[in-house]
Amino acid sequence: MNPSTSFSTRSQAMGPSAIRQVLKFTGMPDVISFAGGLPAPELFPISELRRAADAVLRDDGVASLQYDASEGHLPLRQWICAHLDRTVGIQAAPDRVLITNGSQQGLDLVAKVLIDPGDIVLVENPAYIGALQAFRAYEADIVGLPMDEEGVRIDALGEFLRTSRRRPKLLYLTTNFQNPTGLTTSAERRRHVAALAAEFRLPVLEDDPYGELRYSGPNIRAIGSIPEARDWLYLGTSSKILSPGMRVAWLVVANPQFYERLTLAKQSADLHTSSFTQRLVWQFVSQSELYDAHIERLRAAYVRRRDVMLASLSAHLPEGSSWTRPAGGLFLWLSLPQWQDSTELLQECIAQKVAFVPGAPFWVGRDVRNTLRLNFSNASEERIEDGIARLGRAAEAALV
Amino acid sequence: MNPSTSFSTRSQAMGPSAIRQVLKFTGMPDVISFAGGLPAPELFPISELRRAADAVLRDDGVASLQYDASEGHLPLRQWICAHLDRTVGIQAAPDRVLITNGSQQGLDLVAKVLIDPGDIVLVENPAYIGALQAFRAYEADIVGLPMDEEGVRIDALGEFLRTSRRRPKLLYLTTNFQNPTGLTTSAERRRHVAALAAEFRLPVLEDDPYGELRYSGPNIRAIGSIPEARDWLYLGTSSKILSPGMRVAWLVVANPQFYERLTLAKQSADLHTSSFTQRLVWQFVSQSELYDAHIERLRAAYVRRRDVMLASLSAHLPEGSSWTRPAGGLFLWLSLPQWQDSTELLQECIAQKVAFVPGAPFWVGRDVRNTLRLNFSNASEERIEDGIARLGRAAEAALV
Repeated sequence: MNPSTSFSTRSQAMGPSAIRQVLKFTGMPDVISFAGGLPAPELFPISELRRAADAVLRDDGVASLQYDASEGHLPLRQWICAHLDRTVGIQAAPDRVLITNGSQQGLDLVAKVLIDPGDIVLVENPAYIGALQAFRAYEADIVGLPMDEEGVRIDALGEFLRTSRRRPKLLYLTTNFQNPTGLTTSAERRRHVAALAAEFRLPVLEDDPYGELRYSGPNIRAIGSIPEARDWLYLGTSSKILSPGMRVAWLVVANPQFYERLTLAKQSADLHTSSFTQRLVWQFVSQSELYDAHIERLRAAYVRRRDVMLASLSAHLPEGSSWTRPAGGLFLWLSLPQWQDSTELLQECIAQKVAFVPGAPFWVGRDVRNTLRLNFSNASEERIEDGIARLGRAAEAALV
Repeated sequence: MNPSTSFSTRSQAMGPSAIRQVLKFTGMPDVISFAGGLPAPELFPISELRRAADAVLRDDGVASLQYDASEGHLPLRQWICAHLDRTVGIQAAPDRVLITNGSQQGLDLVAKVLIDPGDIVLVENPAYIGALQAFRAYEADIVGLPMDEEGVRIDALGEFLRTSRRRPKLLYLTTNFQNPTGLTTSAERRRHVAALAAEFRLPVLEDDPYGELRYSGPNIRAIGSIPEARDWLYLGTSSKILSPGMRVAWLVVANPQFYERLTLAKQSADLHTSSFTQRLVWQFVSQSELYDAHIERLRAAYVRRRDVMLASLSAHLPEGSSWTRPAGGLFLWLSLPQWQDSTELLQECIAQKVAFVPGAPFWVGRDVRNTLRLNFSNASEERIEDGIARLGRAAEAALV
């Protein structure tokens, strides 16, 4: 071994991931885990995918095994365009859609193409850990903006843009059922963000992995659908609506030069996303009856799990705790009494065989200890009830 | 659109890819293409992969659709360890094997973890374009070392290491049937490289996508198998032995700290490689009879194509041209008379419906115009003969 290998500055910025540590527990079968963001395993459409995989290899075998274009499989990109038009009001041509290996690669490529060391990226506070990790890997200076029930606070965004000496490179938002808080950016807030970003020529990256998993209320159109929006990017994925194991997501890019640079960065990063999994995802999602029925099944199961979790929290959590009531997605966000530390609570919970992700690493530039993230998509209703009761007992014990 | 989006410095360094331009022609059915590095489409084991895909989804459906570890699927990593021990003499534990989306991602991650802007990377001259692209994307200062028939010249490497004021970060070599030249680094040369690199504490990345496609002569053990070797990395892939559409490759890393940083970089880049394609590759390669028979079929077809190309070149190329006679792999390297320009010849060839990749972009810091790369794996023997005859006519016409 060579102890003297000197790594890049950016490599020093990629610390060990907090989630990575916690996920070690989630594989243990006797631990009830609310830690990951994993879809319900029993709802994977395995037999449909067996048929789809066979059809792809039978009908399009050579192309699904050969090298492919960096932009991605054209029929899949065409389906994505029609789908976004129908669901979030985005109108884009397939030549503005780049297929990536999951949303995480979309975040990585955007950062790679935009960020020089020290450049400012604006995020919601708290924000998705994976995005923070991707931006930090390019040595971004990440600034967290406070949120309220309607999303990122527009007064804070406006003040930052008006007073900052350095122009930020990007505003990153998860507008539907945000990870980690479960909060949704309102339609009005989206319009204000679009207008303000256009005024200050700020590119906006809207990350929307959960948008189709809405359990109540009407769909809200994406920022990219708002006429005032200028330099927007939209990130969607098949991970939560079909299977994260496929690693098929899509980045839609308003600015053609930005798209071209992202495509070159994709080529340099890994040439292209799997020709086979792209065709397999397309084979499934383009059968609209199959797809719609599957989404309905997910919604029906997840809304019940969310409701069981909310009811269990009310029943078992000691006074002084509060939590969000997300209209969709996979997560809710729990605030313990101010003086409690969720990382310490996790130790007690692991003894009780229940796990969650402490909130601290989601916060940017703020030392907040009393929050934590709970996932409700992966465990059964029974295990959710049981797990929240254990969490309640641990929180109760911590009060003593 | 926002004309004022300012991209990162590294993004400016990612120019349009020369290969990307040429590959546009290769899709046209009436063009005989020696340009890409595509496996023979008719040799993809489609029916075996249909059975394998069905078995994976049937027996391991949930895991193949769910999130997975960033390191990769353990049984596949175990197979890789046994396979490398058997074929190239590398002895590594599975916890030093990182699964990547094709070799290109391995190159990208190594560069991401090692290279700060201006850091020196040493490469063979000429070198694989995809590697140059990955290193340039992190603003490396790439230095090309001259080659002879036995690989990179050890006197040039030694002189650079002894006299350079800045210590290089990496030596990148493609030791078997190099892309683009088809040259193989001899066993003796590998030992000298390993010793010199150890003396100067220089990490060596050995890229070996074609090693199993050897048509004559004995296998040569990898640099990582040499006792003197210290901080080595080895890159293997399923792209040329099974299917590039899977995007499953492997990076083996001697240094555990380096491995840990690469794994974090992988997580930040895209969380993990497709759970499904990893299992599909494993399902195929771990059936050793199936795998061995497939490799034999590839070798038998490619050696004939190589021989047809060599014979056709002798028959059709005007005097003053020379070419390599690779012992394996997918490419050979043609040198035209000094005063000829292969980019100009390509124009004439495209009119004649035959394509290749001009050599210029493979050269680092040298303006060499008279070389070009020919692929012999993708076209049938008949088309190779026909295509080389066309190339010969175009070269003949250029002499007038």
